[in-house]
Amino acid sequence: MKTIDFGFIFLLVSVFSLSISSSGINPKYGRSTTFMARFPSSSIVVDQPEQQLSVSSKNNQLYRTKYFTQTLDHFNYNPHSYQTFQQRYLINDTFWGGVHGTENKKIKNAPIFVYTGNEGYIDWFAQNTGFMFEKAPHFKALLVFIEHRFYGKSIPFGGDKEIAYSNATTLGYLSSTQALADYATLIIDLKRNLSSIDSPVVLFGGSYGGMLAAWFRLKYPHVAIGALASSAPILNFENIMSPYSFNDIISQDFRSESENCYKVIKGSWQHIEDTANKPGGLQLLRKSFKICKNHISASSLENWLYTAYVYTAMTDYPTPSNFLSPLPAYPVKQMCKAIDDSKVSGNDILAKLYGAANVYYNSSGTATCFDLDDDSDPHGLEEWTWQACTEMVMPTSGNNKESMFPASEYDYNDRATYCKSMFDIEPRPNWITTEFGGHDIKVVLKRFASNIIFFNGLRDPWSGGGVLKNISNSIISIVAEEGAHHVDLRYSSKEDPKWLQDVRKSEVEIIEKWISQYYDDLARS
Amino acid sequence: MKTIDFGFIFLLVSVFSLSISSSGINPKYGRSTTFMARFPSSSIVVDQPEQQLSVSSKNNQLYRTKYFTQTLDHFNYNPHSYQTFQQRYLINDTFWGGVHGTENKKIKNAPIFVYTGNEGYIDWFAQNTGFMFEKAPHFKALLVFIEHRFYGKSIPFGGDKEIAYSNATTLGYLSSTQALADYATLIIDLKRNLSSIDSPVVLFGGSYGGMLAAWFRLKYPHVAIGALASSAPILNFENIMSPYSFNDIISQDFRSESENCYKVIKGSWQHIEDTANKPGGLQLLRKSFKICKNHISASSLENWLYTAYVYTAMTDYPTPSNFLSPLPAYPVKQMCKAIDDSKVSGNDILAKLYGAANVYYNSSGTATCFDLDDDSDPHGLEEWTWQACTEMVMPTSGNNKESMFPASEYDYNDRATYCKSMFDIEPRPNWITTEFGGHDIKVVLKRFASNIIFFNGLRDPWSGGGVLKNISNSIISIVAEEGAHHVDLRYSSKEDPKWLQDVRKSEVEIIEKWISQYYDDLARS
Repeated sequence: MKTIDFGFIFLLVSVFSLSISSSGINPKYGRSTTFMARFPSSSIVVDQPEQQLSVSSKNNQLYRTKYFTQTLDHFNYNPHSYQTFQQRYLINDTFWGGVHGTENKKIKNAPIFVYTGNEGYIDWFAQNTGFMFEKAPHFKALLVFIEHRFYGKSIPFGGDKEIAYSNATTLGYLSSTQALADYATLIIDLKRNLSSIDSPVVLFGGSYGGMLAAWFRLKYPHVAIGALASSAPILNFENIMSPYSFNDIISQDFRSESENCYKVIKGSWQHIEDTANKPGGLQLLRKSFKICKNHISASSLENWLYTAYVYTAMTDYPTPSNFLSPLPAYPVKQMCKAIDDSKVSGNDILAKLYGAANVYYNSSGTATCFDLDDDSDPHGLEEWTWQACTEMVMPTSGNNKESMFPASEYDYNDRATYCKSMFDIEPRPNWITTEFGGHDIKVVLKRFASNIIFFNGLRDPWSGGGVLKNISNSIISIVAEEGAHHVDLRYSSKEDPKWLQDVRKSEVEIIEKWISQYYDDLARS
Repeated sequence: MKTIDFGFIFLLVSVFSLSISSSGINPKYGRSTTFMARFPSSSIVVDQPEQQLSVSSKNNQLYRTKYFTQTLDHFNYNPHSYQTFQQRYLINDTFWGGVHGTENKKIKNAPIFVYTGNEGYIDWFAQNTGFMFEKAPHFKALLVFIEHRFYGKSIPFGGDKEIAYSNATTLGYLSSTQALADYATLIIDLKRNLSSIDSPVVLFGGSYGGMLAAWFRLKYPHVAIGALASSAPILNFENIMSPYSFNDIISQDFRSESENCYKVIKGSWQHIEDTANKPGGLQLLRKSFKICKNHISASSLENWLYTAYVYTAMTDYPTPSNFLSPLPAYPVKQMCKAIDDSKVSGNDILAKLYGAANVYYNSSGTATCFDLDDDSDPHGLEEWTWQACTEMVMPTSGNNKESMFPASEYDYNDRATYCKSMFDIEPRPNWITTEFGGHDIKVVLKRFASNIIFFNGLRDPWSGGGVLKNISNSIISIVAEEGAHHVDLRYSSKEDPKWLQDVRKSEVEIIEKWISQYYDDLARS
């Protein structure tokens, strides 16, 4: 049995193809179907952030949408690269202290909080970064959320996705270094326009956005005084960490709820394969999992289940949430409850798995059937595939024997083969560490750089690639054993556990220190 | 009277066109003639560094020449950008401690000293960086000199200058950020090949190479532990400093030798114009300055003289040298001596100027006549024009009333007009500060970054754009009042004054500290 996973999972789960064919690897992947989670379409509302968030926000208008004329290529000077595109950003100045706030010189130029957008609609990320909205009044901060190039409405080549996504020549401008330069250019221009060049800029980002926030602080210290990089797996490259880590953490999440839950899932892959190979087996699987369409295969079902486990582990938040899918509080616990509850499912493995899948795919209970090949992309994550095929080569697909997924080795060649067929392009697996480092990070940054918070929740599969120890007095690691994927950035709730309240309190205190130190330094300069 | 200077001077003097025509600006520039110093051809030996340096080096072979297959475009993934080119670097492992040097773990991976090549032949820069050769034995250091893309023999597009230099589409890949990424890529690959990934890398660079060294340390701390940035005017952008500074320092250099010398030069521009406007005046000028060819104009003569003053001020070294031109020790003093010596020239202004010019253009005394329009380019500096037309917009051409050059204002539009006509391209004058910072450098770097030495000699016109004060305990400014352009990097001589010996001693001690601290940190990690 061999597992193949391209690991271009970020927010999204990619190809997880379990193949037991004797001929070995038999990956089945298409472009749009393999990188997306399957959302019951009825529960998805796209691009109506204000409506979605009106409950959480006390303001009628959460932000205004603006566009910035951005340079297509910051690093070359080819005539082509002189082209520009319209980059979307969201701005909220409700609480901003501005440049005429008080007579106290120190807070004359009030702070600017910038979210470094990641691989999807910026409004979606803004909605899921309530922390910034909630803390803006305290800091008198201007809020800015910048959309990442090639995502959402920030599409080069006249905003035409047909052109921008058409081939490697146009997609070539989609890279992390270009995105960082976009942010630098936009922030500097914004500050000039606001006549607030002395405003301290603090960055926020989660997941890939967190990586960008940390990297931005490292590369552009003259633009931002500090960064809160939440669940940013900046070490998930090359051989810095174990490729088993990602799936190990998911396994551990489920095992921590119950040994039985872990064992049922661990044994289920073979059970599904065995069932599929029996006469009438696929029909049984279709019925058991209420699959809408006729198409079903063992691997597509396994992929569908894997997606549910991964995303549930990532968003194992202590309160009900709706980030990747509407979920109850502690959803991993709920999944294991469904698996462990013999009153409901008895010894029927398929019924147990269905119960678990229902936690992720059908929390509302309204779905009547499911589509394994649903390729809807409500958050506009599609072009992550390109990034994963160029520079974001993050080994995550290995499984050791203890994993609840079938044992397998990470294989870079699978990625390379896929990318060749998909884009006629070869990944650069060493580029990120060349440009941003990662190896020996403690030695490198101990006496270099400052003002970065790396938050990680250890229940988050991505935490294995995070910075989990303090690097210096001002490059701080905050680790929450019970935390999931950038849980700290979410809106607070009265039901938040104390550890989460404490994390946010620490983050606020650290950011306060950065800002006050900056004002002091500025006053003395 | 109005002075026009495009200021794309770096090592090289650009358009310095003095026009007193009543219609105002009347710049005369071509591409290759205006950015080069005029060397008497007979004194130039190109591309034979080993021969040139055999006197200075105790080794038969100063270095070996190698080539690295380099990525054309590090930041985009267009099919075009996947192209590679052959990048030249020079290597000397005579003194390297290697990875098996001693049993002492601390120096198991001996240091690597890297020169970050600037805008010309790398062998020329290596020849003028004797400091590295002289200190290599002490540090058991491997020496590497990397050539900058698009210069020397590191030409993309198959090494074909006809293609590479032909237009903006191919020249577009010539930028500082690409060059830095080249260096990172090459160094990492070299260390892997040498199995010396733990070797501390220390960077050296002078002038633009010094800017690259400092920026590299800021952007790639995971690749280099520190940088000696000599005469690196990283603040010579936007409005960080006065555009008068460059010419002010030259004026001060001459004035410090004698008030009369300064006054003669200050008055000479009008004198030349007046002479040229008289009947037979041009003929007189041609004879006075022994001009070979028939072509002469006031502006070309003034440009020729300006070049001599600038380069002499830049290379006002305390010992005889041959960097830009063969020169005696303290050449500014020698120029002023020629001007002041009434026994030789009496009150003949033109004879005085000729005497001064002879110090720079004819130290050997063998030149029989001079060519004002000599466009020879022995050091391969030609493509600086492109860099000056894209990102290296360094205001230097202004002159206040105290200047020994005619009063004038720096005008960015002159640059823009020139670049439009030359390359059909528009400069990006704000890019360097966006990418690398510069404003409020003390506040920005006080608590960020470490291990940079900024050396500046205050007689160097470029020192006005340098970092002249300590930024922190480990970002150090070393200032030598009597120093000229990266004098510290040159081969030592028994005649070196004590201040220069002290500068080099300080630099060695600081670098020793970086390396020892790095070994300590590594041992503890």
